[in-house]
Amino acid sequence: MADPQTVKTDARRHHDPSLRGFASDNYAGAHPEVLAALALANGGHQVAYGEDEYTEHLQRLMHSHFGPTAEAFPVFNGTGANVTALQALTDRWGAVICAETAHINVDEGGAPERMGGLKLLTVPTPDGKLTPELIDRQAYGWDDEHRAMPQVVSITQNTELGTVYTVDEVRAITEHAHSHGMKVHLDGARIANAAASLNVPMRAFTNAAGVDVITFGGTKNGMLFGEAVVVLNPDAVSHMKHLRKLSMQLASKMRFVSVQFEALLAKDLWLRNARHSNTMAQRLADGVRTVDGVEILHEVQANAVFARLPHDVSERLQQRFRFYFWDEAAGDVRWMCSFDTTEEDVDSFVQALKEEMARRP
Amino acid sequence: MADPQTVKTDARRHHDPSLRGFASDNYAGAHPEVLAALALANGGHQVAYGEDEYTEHLQRLMHSHFGPTAEAFPVFNGTGANVTALQALTDRWGAVICAETAHINVDEGGAPERMGGLKLLTVPTPDGKLTPELIDRQAYGWDDEHRAMPQVVSITQNTELGTVYTVDEVRAITEHAHSHGMKVHLDGARIANAAASLNVPMRAFTNAAGVDVITFGGTKNGMLFGEAVVVLNPDAVSHMKHLRKLSMQLASKMRFVSVQFEALLAKDLWLRNARHSNTMAQRLADGVRTVDGVEILHEVQANAVFARLPHDVSERLQQRFRFYFWDEAAGDVRWMCSFDTTEEDVDSFVQALKEEMARRP
Amino acid sequence: MADPQTVKTDARRHHDPSLRGFASDNYAGAHPEVLAALALANGGHQVAYGEDEYTEHLQRLMHSHFGPTAEAFPVFNGTGANVTALQALTDRWGAVICAETAHINVDEGGAPERMGGLKLLTVPTPDGKLTPELIDRQAYGWDDEHRAMPQVVSITQNTELGTVYTVDEVRAITEHAHSHGMKVHLDGARIANAAASLNVPMRAFTNAAGVDVITFGGTKNGMLFGEAVVVLNPDAVSHMKHLRKLSMQLASKMRFVSVQFEALLAKDLWLRNARHSNTMAQRLADGVRTVDGVEILHEVQANAVFARLPHDVSERLQQRFRFYFWDEAAGDVRWMCSFDTTEEDVDSFVQALKEEMARRP
Amino acid sequence: MADPQTVKTDARRHHDPSLRGFASDNYAGAHPEVLAALALANGGHQVAYGEDEYTEHLQRLMHSHFGPTAEAFPVFNGTGANVTALQALTDRWGAVICAETAHINVDEGGAPERMGGLKLLTVPTPDGKLTPELIDRQAYGWDDEHRAMPQVVSITQNTELGTVYTVDEVRAITEHAHSHGMKVHLDGARIANAAASLNVPMRAFTNAAGVDVITFGGTKNGMLFGEAVVVLNPDAVSHMKHLRKLSMQLASKMRFVSVQFEALLAKDLWLRNARHSNTMAQRLADGVRTVDGVEILHEVQANAVFARLPHDVSERLQQRFRFYFWDEAAGDVRWMCSFDTTEEDVDSFVQALKEEMARRP
Repeated sequence: MADPQTVKTDARRHHDPSLRGFASDNYAGAHPEVLAALALANGGHQVAYGEDEYTEHLQRLMHSHFGPTAEAFPVFNGTGANVTALQALTDRWGAVICAETAHINVDEGGAPERMGGLKLLTVPTPDGKLTPELIDRQAYGWDDEHRAMPQVVSITQNTELGTVYTVDEVRAITEHAHSHGMKVHLDGARIANAAASLNVPMRAFTNAAGVDVITFGGTKNGMLFGEAVVVLNPDAVSHMKHLRKLSMQLASKMRFVSVQFEALLAKDLWLRNARHSNTMAQRLADGVRTVDGVEILHEVQANAVFARLPHDVSERLQQRFRFYFWDEAAGDVRWMCSFDTTEEDVDSFVQALKEEMARRP
Repeated sequence: MADPQTVKTDARRHHDPSLRGFASDNYAGAHPEVLAALALANGGHQVAYGEDEYTEHLQRLMHSHFGPTAEAFPVFNGTGANVTALQALTDRWGAVICAETAHINVDEGGAPERMGGLKLLTVPTPDGKLTPELIDRQAYGWDDEHRAMPQVVSITQNTELGTVYTVDEVRAITEHAHSHGMKVHLDGARIANAAASLNVPMRAFTNAAGVDVITFGGTKNGMLFGEAVVVLNPDAVSHMKHLRKLSMQLASKMRFVSVQFEALLAKDLWLRNARHSNTMAQRLADGVRTVDGVEILHEVQANAVFARLPHDVSERLQQRFRFYFWDEAAGDVRWMCSFDTTEEDVDSFVQALKEEMARRP
Repeated sequence: MADPQTVKTDARRHHDPSLRGFASDNYAGAHPEVLAALALANGGHQVAYGEDEYTEHLQRLMHSHFGPTAEAFPVFNGTGANVTALQALTDRWGAVICAETAHINVDEGGAPERMGGLKLLTVPTPDGKLTPELIDRQAYGWDDEHRAMPQVVSITQNTELGTVYTVDEVRAITEHAHSHGMKVHLDGARIANAAASLNVPMRAFTNAAGVDVITFGGTKNGMLFGEAVVVLNPDAVSHMKHLRKLSMQLASKMRFVSVQFEALLAKDLWLRNARHSNTMAQRLADGVRTVDGVEILHEVQANAVFARLPHDVSERLQQRFRFYFWDEAAGDVRWMCSFDTTEEDVDSFVQALKEEMARRP
Repeated sequence: MADPQTVKTDARRHHDPSLRGFASDNYAGAHPEVLAALALANGGHQVAYGEDEYTEHLQRLMHSHFGPTAEAFPVFNGTGANVTALQALTDRWGAVICAETAHINVDEGGAPERMGGLKLLTVPTPDGKLTPELIDRQAYGWDDEHRAMPQVVSITQNTELGTVYTVDEVRAITEHAHSHGMKVHLDGARIANAAASLNVPMRAFTNAAGVDVITFGGTKNGMLFGEAVVVLNPDAVSHMKHLRKLSMQLASKMRFVSVQFEALLAKDLWLRNARHSNTMAQRLADGVRTVDGVEILHEVQANAVFARLPHDVSERLQQRFRFYFWDEAAGDVRWMCSFDTTEEDVDSFVQALKEEMARRP
C-alpha cells in the first residue's frame, strides 16, 4: 500500500488552520497523533462491523482502564451513544431521571424520545449535578402504570456546566439508584476532563463508584469522530450489538474508530489532552477574574468557563473570537478550551475582553 | 500544527495489510488519497455540525455532479442515511415500497421500522430490480386508513444482487411513482459502481431520471466512513437538518466527512475506484466461467459476483479466502471486489476455486 | 331484534351500586341516559370504522357546539385522543410545550414519547395554567436542530388542579402561540366542567378563542367510554383518519361511541352533568372550610377540591371514603365529584372529616 | 339509580335496524344479552383502570376457559390488543414472523411498526396458515445484528381467509417455535368461530397446544367493543399493565368492558354466536355452490366465504347487499356472516346472486 505521506489528493485546504476560538471543544480538529494512527489501521482487509483486530485490541485497552468486565461498543457520536446506552438500560416502559440541563434533554433534538421512545424525568439543579435528594423528586411510582417507570439515573461527568462530581458524589448516586432498583448511566462526553480534574483514574468515578454503563467521549478528546458505549456491569444490559445496529450506530470499517481510541488510550494522550484543556480553562478563568464587571458563574473544574458580562461587550467580543451565549437574556456566555488551545489564545482573549469592557461608557 | 507525516502515535499496527479477500467491499480500508485529505482539513477551529468550509465546498462539488438543486447532508453510515432520507419523504402514516431483497428490508436490523416508524411494503423480484408492474403489487389503497400509505418507492442502484438499473428503467419507475403521487429514493451505497457500469454520469440515472433523494455511498467507494443524503428535489423534503440530528447522524467535526467526499469527487477518484472494482468483478466472473460446475447466478454488472457451487467446495475455499454464503441452503455465495482488489487476488482466487473443485470425488 | 329491556343475560351484578366516593370522576359509571342511547344504535348493520349514520350525525352536533369547521374523530380514551391530536399537530421534529402538571406529562405512561415520538417541553406553574410568559421559557430555538422544535402549546381545560382558564387567558395563549407559528391543543378531558364553571358555551374558550384542536372528554362526563379529537382549524392537521388508525384508536362499531356523545350533546345532558359535579365540589369546599386545620389548596372552579390536612386524618378518612393523595409528603389530597355525587355523599364526607379531625390528640 | 328501561334519552335512532349485509362481522351491532349486561355493571363507584369487581371476576371466567395461569388484560380493539401483546413478547431488537395475509401486516395501518417498533417478517401462504416449513423461511439469523431477531411467531385463528388451524397444526407450530426460543402469539379476533368450527374448547388450540399469549376477540363475537390480551404463559411476558397503558389501551371504566366479556363467557353465548355465524356461512357456501360460474376459493371453515365471480355481477350485487372485494383484479370477494345473520338473509342473497348471474349475456 502507498505511503500516505507521499500521496497526493485532489482535495484542497479551505480553512486557515491558525485560527482558534472558544466556542466549543468540537470546533477543534483531530490531534495529530490520532490522525497518524489511522494510517496504521489502513490497508488490506479486515472483517467489517467490529470483528477486526483493532476493535479486539480496544477491549484490552478498556480493561486496563475500567477493569476486566468492561466491554466497549464503538459508535459514531454522543447522541448515538447515549440513546443506545439508555435503550439498553430500560424496558419499553422505562424512563430516565436526569438533570434538566443534561445534554440528552436539551441538545439531542429529541432523539431519546423519538428514536429511543424514552421518557426523560428531569430535575432542576443549581450546578448541573444530581444528588440523591434531587433524584428523589422523580424516583417514585414504580408500580404505577400511569407513570413511565424510572429505571435509570443518567448523570453527565463533567457536567454541561463545567462542574465535576467527586467520587463520593457519584457513589452516593449509584448507591441510591441501585437501592431503588435503578441503574446508572454516565454520559462521559468529557470523561477525560473529569479524570484530569479529579486527578484520579477514570475507573475511580465509574465502575469503582458503581456506574453501570458509560458513554465514553472520544471526539472532544481529540478524535475525528467516535464515541463508545462502555458497559461496566454486564448484568445491566443485553444484546448491545443488536441495539447499536438498530440505532444506526454500527460502523462498517470500525477499525478506524477503534484505532483512534487506541491512540488516546494506549498511553496517556487522553490525559494529556484533557489536562491541557483544563489548564487553559483555569488560565482563562484567572485572567477573567482580573477584569472588573465580569462574573464567573460556576466553579471552573474542567475545560469550560461560564461568565456573566454586559451583553454589548459579548457581542463586540464575538466579532473577534467565536463563542456562544448560554443564556442570552441573562448575559451568560460559555467559553470552552480544547486540546489545541494555546496560552497565547487565552491571553489574547483576556486582553480583548479587557479592551471591550474598557470601551463601555 | 505538527506535520502528521512526522508524528508518532502510541497506536500500533495489528493486522497484516497484505491480506485481502472477497467478503465485502467494506472489508477494504480507505483509499490513500482519502486518508491524505484528512490532514488538509485538520488544524485550527472550524464551526461544528456542518457549518465548516469543507461542507460548504462539498455543496459546490455536489452541484457539479447533480446540478444546482442538489444539497448534500453528510451522515455516518448507510442505515443512517437511508432512515433519515425515508423519514424525510414520508408522513407519519407513510410506507415505503421496496424490493424484498432491499438493504433497508434485510440488513438494517429493523432500523427503518424501529427508528423511523416506517412500514416497508416489499415485493419479490427476480434480480433485485423493481419495475412499474412490480411496484403495482403494493401501490394501492392511498385512501384506506387501514393500510400504511405508499408514499415512497425505494430502489437500490446498483442492487444488492449486483445488477444495475438502466437509465430508462429508473425513469420508468420515477414516472410511475410520481404519477401516483409517490416520491422516489435511490439507495446509492454503490452509486459509483453503477455509474461506472452504465458509463454515464451519476446524474443521468438520478436527478435527470426523476429521482427525488439519494443515499450517496462513500464508505464502499474508499472512504473511512461517511455517506450523504443528497436531496435532488428540494420540494420533496423539509427540515433535513432536524431529521439528521434526531436520527443521531449529525457529526460534530463534519469537516472530516466532507473532505473525504472532496477527495473522491473533486476529480475522478470516485470513478477510478468504481471502475477498478467493477473490472475486477468482470475478471473474476470470466475466470469462474472457466470452471466446470460453478454457475454464475446474476448478470455481473458491477462489483459483485454471485455464484452457485457445491457446498463443500465453498467451505474449503472459505478456509483460504474470506467470503459469505448468500443462500447457504441453495449453495449460493457472494464474491465482492473492492477498489483495492488486485488482478493477482482474482487470479489466485480462481486458481483456488479450480483446485477445490478438482478435489471433489 | 329483541328488546333489551326484556333480555336476560348470563352476567351478574358484582358490586354495590349504592357506594360512592371521591376518588375520581371516572369511578362513576355511565349516566342512565347514555346507557339508554346504546339500545337505539343497536340492531341491524352499519358500516364499520366510522362511516355509520351515528357518527355522521355527530358531526352535525359538533357543528352546533363548535361551528361549521369542527370535525370530530371519536376515539377510545384520553391518552389515545391526546397522542393522536399531538401527532397531527407536529412534524417528526416537533415538540409540545405544556405545564409540568399536564396529564400528557405525568399520567399517560410515557405514551406521548413512546408512541408519538414526542418531546414534551415542560414548564412549572403555580396553578396548572400556562401563560404567554411561562410559555416563553420553552418557546425558542425553532431553527436549532439540536432542539426538538416547539410546534404546539397544549393546555388542559379545566386543569389537572381544578382551575379554569378564562376566555381571555386562553385567547392570550393562542395569540402568543400563533404569533410564533405554534398551534394550540386543548386537552378537554373535563371540558364540560370548564364551560359550566365559566358559564359560557364551549366554543367561547375553544374555536372562538383560537384553539386549533381539542380533546373532547366523554368518559368523565357520563359516558361508558369514549373521547373525541375535535379539529376546529382544519388547516392545522392532515390525515386524521390515518393517524387515528395507526394510533390504535379506531373503533370498528363506532356507532356505539357516537351515540353516547349524542346522548350528551343533543340537548343539555353534558351541561347538567358538569354543573352538578361542579356544584357538588363547591358544596364540598364550603363544608371543608368549616373544618379547622384543613386548608383548601387551589381555587375550586370545577369538580375537584384539593386540600392539605394531617396525614393520619387522611389515612383514617380513606378507610371510610375512597380518595387519593396528590402529594403524600406534603399531606395534599384530591377529592373529585362526579355527575352522580349526591348532596348526602358530600355532607356525610364532611361530617366524617370533622370526626376524624376531632380524633386527633 | 334510575332503571335504564324507563330512562329517556335525547339521542335518536338514525338507522334501519332491519337491514343486514355480508360486508363484515363488525357491521353487526351488539348482542342483546351483552347490551343487557351493561346495566348490571352500572351505578355506584368502582375503582377505575381495572381494579373493579367485574374485571376481577373476568379472571375467574378466563381460568375456567384457559386454565389457572391465564390472565386477561381487557383493551379496546384488535389492533391495540395485537400491538400490546407483540410488544410484550419481544425485546427492542425483536421481530415477528407472520403470514403475509396477517391482519397485523395488512390491516393495522402500520401500527405494529409505527407504535410497536416491530419488524414483521412475512411469509406467503396458500391459505393464510403458517407451518413449521413456512416459518423456517424467516426463522434464522438470531445472532446476526443486521437482522431484526425473530422472537415471536404470530398466527391468526381462524385466519383472515376463513380457514382454521387444527389442534395438531397449532401444536406443530408452537413446538417448532419454542425449539428455536421463539414464543407464539395467536390473534384470536375470531377465536370463538375457530372453537365452534373445530368443536373443541378454546383451550385445546391455545394453552393446551402451547400458545403463549392470545388476543381474545370480543367485538366480532357480539360485544359493542372490547378485546383482551390473555396471557397463557406468564413466563413469556412482563409488566403487561405498563405496556397496556403506554399503548393507549387502558380503559378507565373497565367494568364496562369486563361485564361484556362476562355476558359472553359466563355460559355459552360466545359459542352460540360463533356456531350461528359459522352455520350461516355454511348455508351460504352451500347455496353458492348451486350457482354455476361462481367458485368458492378457500375451505369454508368458519364464518367467511371467499368466492370468485364475474366482476360485473359483483358490482350489481353490491347494489343490493353490502360486501367487499378481496382482490378486485382477480374478481375475488369476501362474504362474512355474523351472529345476527338470518337464514332469510342468506337465502335472499343466494337468490340475488342467481339473478345477477342470469342477467349476464
